[in-house]
Amino acid sequence: MIENFYPVIPAGGSGTRLWPLSRKGRPKFLFPLGEAERSLLQATARRLLPLADLDRLLVVTGAAHADAVREQLPDLPRANLLAEPSPRDSGPAIALAAAVAHSRDPDAITGSFAADHVVADVPAFHAAIRAAAEVAGSGLLVTIGVTPTRPETGYGYIKTGEPLGIGAALAVDRFVEKPDRETARSYLASGDHLWNAGMFIWRADALLAEVRRQLPDLYAGVTAIAAAYAGGDGTRIHEQLWPTLPRVSIDVGIVEGAAARGRVGCVPGDVGWTDIGDWDTLGSVLPADDTGTVTLDVDDLLNLDSHGCIVAGSGRTVVLLGVRDLVVFDGADVVFVCPRDRAQDVGSVVRALRDAGRDELL
Amino acid sequence: MIENFYPVIPAGGSGTRLWPLSRKGRPKFLFPLGEAERSLLQATARRLLPLADLDRLLVVTGAAHADAVREQLPDLPRANLLAEPSPRDSGPAIALAAAVAHSRDPDAITGSFAADHVVADVPAFHAAIRAAAEVAGSGLLVTIGVTPTRPETGYGYIKTGEPLGIGAALAVDRFVEKPDRETARSYLASGDHLWNAGMFIWRADALLAEVRRQLPDLYAGVTAIAAAYAGGDGTRIHEQLWPTLPRVSIDVGIVEGAAARGRVGCVPGDVGWTDIGDWDTLGSVLPADDTGTVTLDVDDLLNLDSHGCIVAGSGRTVVLLGVRDLVVFDGADVVFVCPRDRAQDVGSVVRALRDAGRDELL
Repeated sequence: MIENFYPVIPAGGSGTRLWPLSRKGRPKFLFPLGEAERSLLQATARRLLPLADLDRLLVVTGAAHADAVREQLPDLPRANLLAEPSPRDSGPAIALAAAVAHSRDPDAITGSFAADHVVADVPAFHAAIRAAAEVAGSGLLVTIGVTPTRPETGYGYIKTGEPLGIGAALAVDRFVEKPDRETARSYLASGDHLWNAGMFIWRADALLAEVRRQLPDLYAGVTAIAAAYAGGDGTRIHEQLWPTLPRVSIDVGIVEGAAARGRVGCVPGDVGWTDIGDWDTLGSVLPADDTGTVTLDVDDLLNLDSHGCIVAGSGRTVVLLGVRDLVVFDGADVVFVCPRDRAQDVGSVVRALRDAGRDELL
Repeated sequence: MIENFYPVIPAGGSGTRLWPLSRKGRPKFLFPLGEAERSLLQATARRLLPLADLDRLLVVTGAAHADAVREQLPDLPRANLLAEPSPRDSGPAIALAAAVAHSRDPDAITGSFAADHVVADVPAFHAAIRAAAEVAGSGLLVTIGVTPTRPETGYGYIKTGEPLGIGAALAVDRFVEKPDRETARSYLASGDHLWNAGMFIWRADALLAEVRRQLPDLYAGVTAIAAAYAGGDGTRIHEQLWPTLPRVSIDVGIVEGAAARGRVGCVPGDVGWTDIGDWDTLGSVLPADDTGTVTLDVDDLLNLDSHGCIVAGSGRTVVLLGVRDLVVFDGADVVFVCPRDRAQDVGSVVRALRDAGRDELL
């Protein structure tokens, strides 16, 4: 347990790059892609519970997914599930959770842990959060920076600075965008660039102070909604105020601005983190057979001289002959084939379908 | 019209290399792969009818496919459809058709034209058959040899010899097996190797004389069955005698032995012939869109940066992103993916399924 710790799980985002597995109505965090048949959401909650009691765990999700979340986390207190009336990106979601925690406990430390990430080394993850919580006690916003293991172009990076003098914590110089391959190689070689895993720990009051300073409208909105929840009229006020809040990510809206003022610290952590952002990453996280083939809900695969494929099925027999490193998705309504090294471009399919008015496939 | 000409269409063979389109119960000759929505069988019959009246066209097929053949060729006289009680390869089928034709007309010229081939240049095809029929009048067995246009390794070849002095006809030195790539190149360069298209024209009595000489049991069987058909008891005798006949191809069982005795002639013909033996060939015969993509029963294909694929569907949406030269088959029971350049190996899938007892997929 970590004293006063209120972990927050933002469970949002449909993950267009995992289309057609992940759909608007069935986002990837609901899928059993976590260990031992658990969904990513369930695995995320389970990972956090040794650090906080269940009645301090807060989940923020879209109204459309609230029932599915309740089903997957049946013991979560009803008041701890915050259902967003409409998508406003991560900024309002995480700020509201901080405001709710703060309304319950003025010394609350909250943290944000995406519902659709994988963490392989749970003890290291717990140690990193404990260290981050200690740093957060000083009033800094703290992020856990993951030591890169490859020149990944699909993640953002954190450029770290001087040691802060609290454990292994470092100052954050700045957050940097997803790099190209060459830049990613230089980051990997530099030693002072860590992966931005979007894992945050902070005192709720410290975050809310930054929100008030940078986005006063957002501050006014989330504190009013939190007060209404405390007073029993949360849902109505939430629905009323939510559409008026700025649509902004927590990174761009709050954390980057705080970093520019030297208000963000970083705790490095080798926690075995993966953002299952696309098919290729999914294939690297799930167990492969001795042909390097990964299957997902495929009962009947005949693999003849094929290697490195990711096959997701829906009951039909799938036969692969002589193919390499393909994604093959066999769904009830759509069959999708693409090379793993084009996995980053799957969002373009979703855009093309949206442009074509094919909402039934999104 | 060609006098006394009884064209024979052997409609057999499930074509394992076109699996899963072609199945045991639904062989490829029934599919609308011919021009203008006609099945290959219908296109084959239509191509022959300018040379012979419909009441001289003979079709030999497996009992399991007889109803489908009748449906596709509703005007074919019932007596002209010979339904094989069990598969005995092409030798018994073609010999029986010759015997039936001979029982109706002692001067019958028969010819064998596979139900699942494509012929693009019909006037040249007609001219070649007329020339072959003239040569056949001399008592030789005559084959039409197709001038090779590429070093094809999927076809057998005919090594031609001296001119016969009848039109452009040449002696046949020998039939040669499917070559490897290098040998195929040398055949193409040689000028005296033609593709063996399995197109035969001969006097029925000349063929039957060769059958009697080489396979007397087969001769006795097919003449007895033909006599029974003429006498009205064909079906019973056919069912009784058929299982006793040797299982042999017309090439190996009869024509090669005749060639060794100098009894086979060859008429070269540039007839635009293709044996749609595999997916790659099928893709080269069907019309492609401007991305080189060929579709078959696909209503809804989203093609993003993909080229040269062959897509066969069954109603679902198919989405291809960034793939090249793949076969993608989306069936009701099976999804199959393989590169076009592995098309020759599709038979191995059928063997693997058979070995696994997966008869429902064959």
